[in-house]
This record gives sequence, structure tokens and C-alpha cells, in this order.
Amino acid sequence: MSAWKRGNEPLRAPSRLLLGPGPSNVAPSVAAAQGSAPVGHLDPFHLSVLAAIRPLLRQVLGTGNELTFAIPGTGTTGMQAILESLLEPGDGVLVGSCGYFGGRLAEASRRLGAEVTLVEGEWGKPLALDALRSAAQGKKMKAVCVVHAETSTGVLQELPGMSELAAELGALLVVDAVTSAGATPVEMDARGIDALFTCTQKGLGCPSGLAPLSMSARAVEVMKARRSPVPSFALDLGLHAGYQAESPVYHHTSPSGSQLALHEALRLIHEEGLAARYQRHAEASARAVAGLETLGLELLVPKEQRIPHLLAVRVPEGVDDAKVRRHLLERHSIEIGGGLGQLKGKIWRMGLMAEGARPRSVDKLLEGLKEALKSS
Amino acid sequence: MSAWKRGNEPLRAPSRLLLGPGPSNVAPSVAAAQGSAPVGHLDPFHLSVLAAIRPLLRQVLGTGNELTFAIPGTGTTGMQAILESLLEPGDGVLVGSCGYFGGRLAEASRRLGAEVTLVEGEWGKPLALDALRSAAQGKKMKAVCVVHAETSTGVLQELPGMSELAAELGALLVVDAVTSAGATPVEMDARGIDALFTCTQKGLGCPSGLAPLSMSARAVEVMKARRSPVPSFALDLGLHAGYQAESPVYHHTSPSGSQLALHEALRLIHEEGLAARYQRHAEASARAVAGLETLGLELLVPKEQRIPHLLAVRVPEGVDDAKVRRHLLERHSIEIGGGLGQLKGKIWRMGLMAEGARPRSVDKLLEGLKEALKSS
Repeated sequence: MSAWKRGNEPLRAPSRLLLGPGPSNVAPSVAAAQGSAPVGHLDPFHLSVLAAIRPLLRQVLGTGNELTFAIPGTGTTGMQAILESLLEPGDGVLVGSCGYFGGRLAEASRRLGAEVTLVEGEWGKPLALDALRSAAQGKKMKAVCVVHAETSTGVLQELPGMSELAAELGALLVVDAVTSAGATPVEMDARGIDALFTCTQKGLGCPSGLAPLSMSARAVEVMKARRSPVPSFALDLGLHAGYQAESPVYHHTSPSGSQLALHEALRLIHEEGLAARYQRHAEASARAVAGLETLGLELLVPKEQRIPHLLAVRVPEGVDDAKVRRHLLERHSIEIGGGLGQLKGKIWRMGLMAEGARPRSVDKLLEGLKEALKSS
Repeated sequence: MSAWKRGNEPLRAPSRLLLGPGPSNVAPSVAAAQGSAPVGHLDPFHLSVLAAIRPLLRQVLGTGNELTFAIPGTGTTGMQAILESLLEPGDGVLVGSCGYFGGRLAEASRRLGAEVTLVEGEWGKPLALDALRSAAQGKKMKAVCVVHAETSTGVLQELPGMSELAAELGALLVVDAVTSAGATPVEMDARGIDALFTCTQKGLGCPSGLAPLSMSARAVEVMKARRSPVPSFALDLGLHAGYQAESPVYHHTSPSGSQLALHEALRLIHEEGLAARYQRHAEASARAVAGLETLGLELLVPKEQRIPHLLAVRVPEGVDDAKVRRHLLERHSIEIGGGLGQLKGKIWRMGLMAEGARPRSVDKLLEGLKEALKSS
């Protein structure tokens, strides 16, 4: 009980170039919004911020869904809120998994009492639509859950065909877009996605702390037709929708700075233009890939299946994974990520997202990496 | 899909004097920490911030509990995480409620499948220990849940006696300290509280966005001895404890700026000293009460039962509640709160918390209120 010593100074965050799987660096105006003086959760200004976020977010997600907003928490909270608002004990759920985040969808669904049919593919490859289809045969499914950009492996899952599969099964298509939104097209409506969640701290270029999400009218109907209430009072999206409505009903104290930062991040995205933004991410990726290959490094995922803005790079034989990452962090203040789960120690994860998806970031990464590899 | 217009400017938050039920104003250094450049959730700096928060938070809550940290979300999320980590379907739960937040404890427990025995008292009065005891008679209880400072009525619940009741029932004592922590003593260990949650944006003087919480060793044992896993993957406090451990296991992307802001807020609290801080809150309260009485206004709750830093003030006969609040906000940029639930339109809620608990804030409030009442 004597942790406090008089005279302690405020802690100061180091300045990092964030080139891992997230968080990514944010624009100065986004950080300023995040640090703005708080206002009340029912202040007309704050309500106008929430109202301004909704259409901007819809555009980024490619949807016209009424239920589109960000709730307090992280991407993990967003996943929970979507699954928990839709699933009931005994519901059949088809989960495709080729990595940590696919596995997480299965675990979270199981904890909610759903009957999960898990189709596991190889880590580093995308899911095969046929494997999903045959695993579901003869079973009743309420939802088909897949990960758009599998952060643990660097694989971008093709979504075409998924909504047809969900339709065949009479199920909702639920997509984890945590590492895709803002950096590559999500196209929620065009791809027939019924429920989607993401985070703020990757492609959207915002600090962590909110989970943007969206549900189609069909998904909202399913939520409203539940036999039992949503088990989580805090994450019931019906209650969140009540707070985001024209006459807001109190549910929680909305973090005004975080929402203002999200607004500013979305404003910058639209100022840049979505097409230009995706192009910038693709160009940064190409520059990084060329440089990594020059350094003799290999990518885990072939080009056609790769998340352009999150590269899984094989740790070369005989190289100490952690030592290289430590060198980059300590000498260059650059963060890259290590592997997760079965890829721990085997890959580095290098993210070129939001403010990080720029030639100068790529060049700094390649320079630092070259030196770190030499000294390892 | 055409919400965006080129040339839009960033939105700027108005400068408010926040004297409602929360959020409260924060110190400039706290806002600066909140807006600091993000760092990774496994960055040694960020982990050192989390490690520094834990003992500082323990001191404010008056506990030596190992499981003491803040999770992403709001106070509502904290309530959910505590209840969800402890309760299983069929568990008996005794909930005492004299307001909105007591009722919320009951609803959240019921949604989790608990058998709730709800003891409802009059709004504006504290709970009677005897009513709780007799309602529980002959029933098996896993938890006794009460609200320390009932934000909807301004009543401070006396906690002495509660842990004895919980002990008689062989139950855990769970306390909502959302509106008490940081502004008035919580004394978790001395009062025999097993699980407690709070928010950042009231007495702690931080923006909203995290839920500080704590569980006793006994509560942790109960969590570990569950027959079924915690239904929420996102809010499983066992998983959060794994991330807060010495060798952190990934669970979510911790919001680095929010945690740094909490550290700074706690640092300022300890720099001021807890006793001096509580004294400052009590003095601001006394100054406000004297001024309100001079204006002819009446308080809902007698002094001995009152939350000193959250005053429930009766809306005088013939005065338009909303008009007065609007006048204060629009003319003076001062926020006060309206009533919730059955007290809607009947009271104003005036909070003197954290940076707001100062004589100049009180004087501005009284001046503004005087004028607003005249013109209403």
C-alpha cells in the first residue's frame, strides 16, 4: 500500500513508428480530438458527433445499414456484442478458421452456448468454401462466421461466395473486419454481410477504445425475434441502438474524446477518398514486399491471398525472432509484431496501415530491419 | 451514401464546466495523456503503465487485491464483467435497489440466468439492512449486490453491516462504486467488499473509456471454480488477468492513451493525497448546499444519507426542468443532469467531482442557476 512516492513525474509515452499488426500511428488531429476536454454523453455537441459518425462509417463499410455505430471497448468487445446480440443457446453456428481470430469466433460462440461446427483450415491459407459447405450439410445454422483479414497469418479471405453459402443455409453472414476496414474495401452490402465488427486502431487510424460495427435489417430482425434477452446488458446492441437513436435513452457514458477522434479519423479518410486510400495502402505494401525480398526475406502468404497491409514474414533459419524485434524497438523505436499461436517465433507481422502506409515508413522499416538482421 | 462533403472541417468540442452526474472535468495533464501518440499493447512502456496503475488504483479503492486493474469500456462494462465472471445460471443473487443503478444490477444478473431476489426501497432513501436480511431468509445466495453511491437519487448507501450479511449467507459482496471512487472513501478491504467496479469519468477525474475494478482472492476462487466458462470471451476477467500478468497473454488491444490518462489521474490523486481530496469534495459540497438553500432550493436527500459530491436538487413547483438545464448549457456552458427513471423532471443532479469540486466551479454554478431560475 505504499506504491506512491511524492514527487513522481507524469509518464511520457515514447514516440513509436507502429508497423505491427496494430495499433497504427494516428494523424495529429486525431490525437488532438482524442485528448479534447470531455463533454457529457447527452450534450448536443456529443450527440451531433455520434450522428455525424454514422453516415461516414457507413461509407467506409460500404453499407446503408441503419444500425451502424461504434461502441466503447475494443474490436474484441465488438465481436462479443455482435455474437451475443444474435446467438442463443443451442443455435447452430458455422465457423471457418485458419488462424487465431477464426478460433476466437468459435470459442466466443461456444461460450454463449451455440452449437459450433468448426472448419479448420491450414494457418497461412484461406478457407475453402467447399469445406465450409460440406461441414454444414444437414445441419441447421443461424450464422456463418468468418474473418475477412486474419491478423495472425496475413491471409485475406475472399468473401464472394460466402453470402450465397449463408443464404443456402438460411443463416446470417457474420464477418470479423478488424484488420480490413479502412485499409482495403469491406463492401458490406455488396458482399451480403449481415453483421460486421471492426476496431479503430488499425486501418481507420484512430487510437484503440471503440468498436465500430454494423448489422443489416435482417440481422436486427433476428436480434429482435430472440426467445431470450441478450445475456449481456452492457453489450446488448438493442440498448446501444436506443442510445444512438434520435431521442437517446441513457445506457452508458459514451467516451466523448474517443468518439470525436473516430469522427476526425473518418473525416480524414473521406478527405483522402476511399479509392486513393486503398491505393496508398497497396503501394506501401508493394514497396515493402520488394524491399523485404531484396533483404532475402520470404513472405508466408502468396500475393493473391495476402492482406496487402499486413505482411507475415518468415523469420529466417537461425535468426532470433525476439532479438530482431527488440533491436527495432530499442534502436529505431519501430514496432513490428511477432507470431501468434502456432506461428509464434516463426513469423514477423508487419503492418502498413493508416498513417504507417507511407513510403517513408516503409523505408525506415527496411533500413532498421537490414541493420537488425546484420547484428542478430 | 453521400454524407461526406469535401472541405468539411474538424469538429471542435465546446469547453464545458461539467457539473452533472458525470463525466467531470479533467486536469490538463490527464487530457494530454489521453491524447498521447498510441503505443502497442505489448510495448514495454505500455506494460509499465499498466503495472504502475495497479498499486495506485489499489490505494484509491483501499484494497490489497491482486486482481485490480482497468478494462476497456465504461462503468457499465465493468459491472457486466464482474457479474458475468462470477454468476452462473441458477445462482441466487440478492440485489438491493433504491434507484436506477440498483435496478440495473438486478436486470444484468437476471439476463445472466441468476435467480434474483430484488429488494426495492424507496428512491431517495438508503436500503434497510433488515429488509435485505429478511428477503434472503432460507435462500441460497452466491452474491449480495448493492450500489455504494446511487447516481440516480444522490443517496450514499452505508456499507457497514453488508459484509456481515453476505457472510451470514455465504455470499460474495459485490459493490457498484461508479460514483464513489476517488471522491469519497471506498475502503474495499475494510468493508469486506469482494468485487467492486467503478468508472474513470467521475471521482477519478479521467475521460470515460475504462472500467477500473477489483476482486478479492475469495471472489477469484469463486470465478475459478465455475462449472461453466464465463459466457463472455471479451469480459472474462480471467483472460483480462492473463493480459495484466507479468508475462502478458494477448487478449485485446489495450487503449494506451486511456490507460496513460488513468495513470496520470491516479498520480494527481496521490499527489493531492486521498484525505485532502475527500476534504476538498466535502467542502465544495457544503459550499454548494449553502448556496442552493440561499436560492430557496431543496435537496432530495437529508445530509446524513447524501452523496456529498452528487446533489439531487428538487425542481421547484412550476419551473421547467429542461429549460433551466438548457439555459445553463447554452448561456453558461455548464452541464448539470436531469432526473432518471421515476425522478425524471423532478430533480436536477449536480455533481462536484474531481476538477469540478472547487469553489470557483460551485460559484459559477450558483450564479448561472440563479439567473436561469429568474428567466424560467
